[in-house]
Amino acid sequence: MAKQAYSRRDLAFQLHEVLQVERLNRFPYFKDHDRGSIDLVLDTAGQFADQLLKPLLTELDRQEPQLVDGTIRVHPGVKDIVHRFGQDGWINALFSYEEGGQQLPGTVYNAAVFAMQATNYSASVPPFLTLGAANLLRSFAAPELTAAFTPHMYAGRWQGTMALTEPDAGSSLSDISTSAEPTEDGYYRIRGQKIYISSGDHDACDNVVHLMLAKIKGGPAGAKGISLFAVPRQRVAEGLPNEATQPEELISNDVVTAGIYHKLGCKGAPIAHLMIGGDGDTRGYLVGEPNKGLSYMFQMMNEARLAVGVSAAAIGTAAYYAALEYARARPQGRPIANRDVTQPQVPIIRHADVKRMLLFQKATMEGALGLLLQCSYYMDVARVGEGAEKERAELLLDLLMPIAKTYPSEMGVLSTSAAIQVHGGAGYTTDFPVEQFWRESRIHPIHEGTTGIQGLDLLGRKITQHGGKAVGLLLEEIQATIASAAVVSELAPLAAQLTKNVGILQQVTGHLLGVAARDHELFLADATLYLELAGLVVVAWQWLRQARVAQAALPAAHPDDQNFYHGKLMAAQYFYEYELVRAPGLAKRLQSANAVTVAMQEAWF
Amino acid sequence: MAKQAYSRRDLAFQLHEVLQVERLNRFPYFKDHDRGSIDLVLDTAGQFADQLLKPLLTELDRQEPQLVDGTIRVHPGVKDIVHRFGQDGWINALFSYEEGGQQLPGTVYNAAVFAMQATNYSASVPPFLTLGAANLLRSFAAPELTAAFTPHMYAGRWQGTMALTEPDAGSSLSDISTSAEPTEDGYYRIRGQKIYISSGDHDACDNVVHLMLAKIKGGPAGAKGISLFAVPRQRVAEGLPNEATQPEELISNDVVTAGIYHKLGCKGAPIAHLMIGGDGDTRGYLVGEPNKGLSYMFQMMNEARLAVGVSAAAIGTAAYYAALEYARARPQGRPIANRDVTQPQVPIIRHADVKRMLLFQKATMEGALGLLLQCSYYMDVARVGEGAEKERAELLLDLLMPIAKTYPSEMGVLSTSAAIQVHGGAGYTTDFPVEQFWRESRIHPIHEGTTGIQGLDLLGRKITQHGGKAVGLLLEEIQATIASAAVVSELAPLAAQLTKNVGILQQVTGHLLGVAARDHELFLADATLYLELAGLVVVAWQWLRQARVAQAALPAAHPDDQNFYHGKLMAAQYFYEYELVRAPGLAKRLQSANAVTVAMQEAWF
Repeated sequence: MAKQAYSRRDLAFQLHEVLQVERLNRFPYFKDHDRGSIDLVLDTAGQFADQLLKPLLTELDRQEPQLVDGTIRVHPGVKDIVHRFGQDGWINALFSYEEGGQQLPGTVYNAAVFAMQATNYSASVPPFLTLGAANLLRSFAAPELTAAFTPHMYAGRWQGTMALTEPDAGSSLSDISTSAEPTEDGYYRIRGQKIYISSGDHDACDNVVHLMLAKIKGGPAGAKGISLFAVPRQRVAEGLPNEATQPEELISNDVVTAGIYHKLGCKGAPIAHLMIGGDGDTRGYLVGEPNKGLSYMFQMMNEARLAVGVSAAAIGTAAYYAALEYARARPQGRPIANRDVTQPQVPIIRHADVKRMLLFQKATMEGALGLLLQCSYYMDVARVGEGAEKERAELLLDLLMPIAKTYPSEMGVLSTSAAIQVHGGAGYTTDFPVEQFWRESRIHPIHEGTTGIQGLDLLGRKITQHGGKAVGLLLEEIQATIASAAVVSELAPLAAQLTKNVGILQQVTGHLLGVAARDHELFLADATLYLELAGLVVVAWQWLRQARVAQAALPAAHPDDQNFYHGKLMAAQYFYEYELVRAPGLAKRLQSANAVTVAMQEAWF
Repeated sequence: MAKQAYSRRDLAFQLHEVLQVERLNRFPYFKDHDRGSIDLVLDTAGQFADQLLKPLLTELDRQEPQLVDGTIRVHPGVKDIVHRFGQDGWINALFSYEEGGQQLPGTVYNAAVFAMQATNYSASVPPFLTLGAANLLRSFAAPELTAAFTPHMYAGRWQGTMALTEPDAGSSLSDISTSAEPTEDGYYRIRGQKIYISSGDHDACDNVVHLMLAKIKGGPAGAKGISLFAVPRQRVAEGLPNEATQPEELISNDVVTAGIYHKLGCKGAPIAHLMIGGDGDTRGYLVGEPNKGLSYMFQMMNEARLAVGVSAAAIGTAAYYAALEYARARPQGRPIANRDVTQPQVPIIRHADVKRMLLFQKATMEGALGLLLQCSYYMDVARVGEGAEKERAELLLDLLMPIAKTYPSEMGVLSTSAAIQVHGGAGYTTDFPVEQFWRESRIHPIHEGTTGIQGLDLLGRKITQHGGKAVGLLLEEIQATIASAAVVSELAPLAAQLTKNVGILQQVTGHLLGVAARDHELFLADATLYLELAGLVVVAWQWLRQARVAQAALPAAHPDDQNFYHGKLMAAQYFYEYELVRAPGLAKRLQSANAVTVAMQEAWF
């Protein structure tokens, strides 16, 4: 196993030097958080990761969960992890003091999550799912419903899930068929089945609370008839549980684990196939109002999609540090300038092609992390800010979200693959952790909306909504970065290149909006490529931000820090030289009149 | 499991319509092979694959080989497979009638191998390794040595291996330390260790014959002191075995299996860590002359690297057909033009983004197959041709080899990943075969020379050798294709685009040769990107060849064939519209004066 999974120094750089996250304490909700307390949170997260998560990285992958006697059995170490997540206050850290939380900025929290997930992604999945489910309850459910479930969830005793997908409804959620029938006792009888439910059942918690989409009988067709329910795996005999409810008081709520899926990776977190209400005895509790389930779910979608981006960047970062460690230690070959075979071999990190692969990982993953923390910052302002500032943050966040979800996810797969390549044959064996990272990374372009769905969201919705106001705001932000970098001689070439590529993106956008007016299918046919192009430009912006800070700090820096800043500047150069150069090719295709994919017919494959 | 793993129709198209492989029977060695016999070979390969290989695809992956009591135990079904490979004449099919072979053209053989490996790659690894080892013996060993081992190998009873890699010598073979000490009895005492030896030990064969690199004591340093030995795992008490040698006559040759590696994929074919001569009792038999081991190995390298390309294209093709089958069967979502939720969902193959992912797979893998068969054809001519024709084929083959190895390997990983993406969440589970294909594909950019090594081979050696003669010949071939396509109105745009991109590649080549004169490290720093650029241009050439044939055949074709030809034309369009457009971006980077990777320092990471 690699010694280092992420860089604490880079987290400090991104949070304090680039983002100046401390500025958030101008908002009353965050007033207690200064640099000292923020660093303490990050250090605590690091200790938690090292002590609890790191030892189980390989084991959770090798000892897959199994369905035994109707319950999914996970590695015994998972129980300790989920309970400690709760006890140590990591599940409700974002929430108010009144709720027992710490009113922590999401930006800081996501940096802490990044550290944990770089250390052991799949171990962190169950508690963060609990957080997402609890957040849905506290945001939209009646107080008595929230009070019934969330204390157990915050404590890490009860698992929370998002139960959306069904056999016939994955990307197309409007097609769910799980039904809810009202009763005179206030609850609904739920019936249906759900698939791919992460942490949908396991023996590390005493109970599971599913936040489940279902259709109330007789309601409207499609998405407009979807409601959200809290459906516990086990319930109390009558009424709702309370904070003091003990495991022995729980009885079955007729939610049956029909199967467990075996997966390519992320094996520490089981996914279940659930049969609900087979005996007609599943009680579900309506969250908020009827028929608003999808809109509630979508209001939480930004958090969920940002979380996927963070996970993807975390795994990619862990793979990068594993590759870096290997490249420094592994002697093989000699410098091209002096191939004398009587001389000892040199560490492979001296070869330009290996440095290229390492820079690719560094540039994509640290660029991704910058974007994710930037979006987290917008999310914090959107949450506690007011007026124009709040609106601006909301618009920027909504616009950037498909990119923040997809760029780390897609590049994470390539980045972990590069980490394998640095290892050569060793990387293909289970003796090194990179093959596991590669397998774990592959889920991220799929879950919480596939890359294809994100492309449609960006081009088909986010670009045009509010009359294109969000795009205008993003351009303002990018222009401000360009203006501040253009006056620094070392960065002026990057600033000019970004200006040019922003222009390319604008031109492509204009072209596609012209297509939209006459052919909606053609307009959206290459939305995935549009998303890729936008990702390149946005991450190039992030790199210019990071480069500007590094360039300014370099002259007066301590020698160790000088190395760090040089690394940042080289990674920025790498991004512009090797990655951003792909933009014109994408733009050319996006503006082509040749509708290849639309014209292709099923019978021709 | 998917029903179809490859397209028999496409093999006929590539071999008969595009390549006109029957032309090879103008050479006496191939005179007995006409279209009828060639089709029979392909059909027989298909039956072999369906009957023997297909049933074990999943099982070989799930039941990994284990080291038990010093021997690697493989799935019991492997024994039947390797023996049938031998009995049915698949191991020595390429060799002469005198050797018991069929004098089969390598082009036809590789098409048959493609069909088998698309069906079950890892099951095919052991027998094809035996073929490679046997070919080394018959090509370079004294007749009595060849006669001692090859009959058992051809019959599938004895396994053959290529034993090159050592703990300190992977990409840098000149650093091997396995030693060979001559004895008065004609054999050598071998001592050392070898790692990652594919099929280096298993219980499906009675014996293993390692074709092993070692250094004769007192010989020159580095690559010039490497010799090739036949080192059996078990030997007869005195002298050499013969055709009639029975398993019970065999005694240990002091080759000990010290470990087995557990891998990401290709689990049907074990890889071993071998300790040789620990008791000073390992006998090795010199193959050919002393100190020529590496040159013998390299003369077989074209076959080995072409074989990797075929394997990669085969796995990618299998993943494509699995994705195609899923996309046709899986209903999800509605057409963008009519999203009425009261209407049934449509198969996902109707969505442009899904068609894009399928076309990506089709375009990259069928393009790769075209290149591989083209190279196989050159190999056949190089093998049996004479004079200028032979020299031309040799030069083209040598030049194209790094591309033929790397393009399918690199794109195979992306193509199988796209197959997962088409499946959505289902693709991440072990319920569908695509995750296995993805894992199996990942070895190909690594083994038989990593992508980085191939880039150095192309740019640092192949482009310039023989005064650039090979490049001139390739340009002639490409120009001939362009000329024949440019006069067809439907294909003229593609011909023009290829002309332009060939020009880009020439310009980049000229630029880099200029750099070579002043800075050799900088010249080769981006060799991997140069290889990628060359791959795009060469595969675009292959697509123009295929498109030209399809366009000509379309008007008079049977309706089923019309669908096939339309598919070819659309895939060609796709390749030019979505893949070849990446060339200018690569060219820009390759001509940049910013030496990012060379300048990057170890301490800055």
